[in-house]
Amino acid sequence: MSRRVVLGVDPGNARCGWGVVAEEEGVLSAVEFGCLSTPASLGRVERLVRIHQGLTEILTRHVPDEVAVEQLFFNRNVTSAMAVGEARGVALLAAGQQGLPVGEYTPSQVKEALTGSGRASKDELRTVVVMTLGLERPPRPDDVSDALGIALTHVFHRQLSLT
Amino acid sequence: MSRRVVLGVDPGNARCGWGVVAEEEGVLSAVEFGCLSTPASLGRVERLVRIHQGLTEILTRHVPDEVAVEQLFFNRNVTSAMAVGEARGVALLAAGQQGLPVGEYTPSQVKEALTGSGRASKDELRTVVVMTLGLERPPRPDDVSDALGIALTHVFHRQLSLT
Repeated sequence: MSRRVVLGVDPGNARCGWGVVAEEEGVLSAVEFGCLSTPASLGRVERLVRIHQGLTEILTRHVPDEVAVEQLFFNRNVTSAMAVGEARGVALLAAGQQGLPVGEYTPSQVKEALTGSGRASKDELRTVVVMTLGLERPPRPDDVSDALGIALTHVFHRQLSLT
Repeated sequence: MSRRVVLGVDPGNARCGWGVVAEEEGVLSAVEFGCLSTPASLGRVERLVRIHQGLTEILTRHVPDEVAVEQLFFNRNVTSAMAVGEARGVALLAAGQQGLPVGEYTPSQVKEALTGSGRASKDELRTVVVMTLGLERPPRPDDVSDALGIALTHVFHRQLSLT
């Protein structure tokens, strides 16, 4: 009997969604999820420090086997890509410091894994997350649902690669 | 008599240039400088862990008063902007974890501060770094000279703001 625990992260500087998913004998469940929010009154650097602290605390508490992080290749503009990249760097670092393997998935990989179609809407994705994990409603803010979706994508990819 | 020490960082995942500059009674000097190189055989995540370790070690050893980091707003493509953003995030985090103030400067701000012209060439910039710090030759790789240039930019900006 094996239990596998995956932390999914939707990185951001202002809001960083996270979700811990467990897979045990084919049964998926949400262990805990939430959103690290940092007040705008903090500078960008202090926000990164808080995100790193928060993720490290979550990693220490849940001791996941693996971490999955959203990978964005495109963005409306390079400045915001840079800001997301900074938060991503801090999330990857937190996982790496715990010696954990990291999977990275683009939004279209998440759509494909959860719905079988790269064209699914955000709402469809969130519905799949709710149904798959047996939740009562989509967790808010959306960053949390997205983080759970990334964790599920990692579980499904791993299942595929084990088949 | 006050001595001010600034760490300049030119962030990158493969190579991260750094340079410690001291200013004492109007005299500028290079305290130590170098380049954190990470082997391509390491994954991106492990590279970020090494960069963070290296910068934290430098910050602990030199205890600078302030940190200056290159700020890129433009890049040839969003994917590489994201990768630079990840390394930047880790550099900003390392400074923030030590509670240090961080200045961020674009390449054109560096050019303006060091040469008085936003159009200076990279070679001109490196010549100014060598002359200002009384070095025998431009430190290699270029990332190191660039990091020293960023530290000097921070010193000059601060001098201006104190005038």
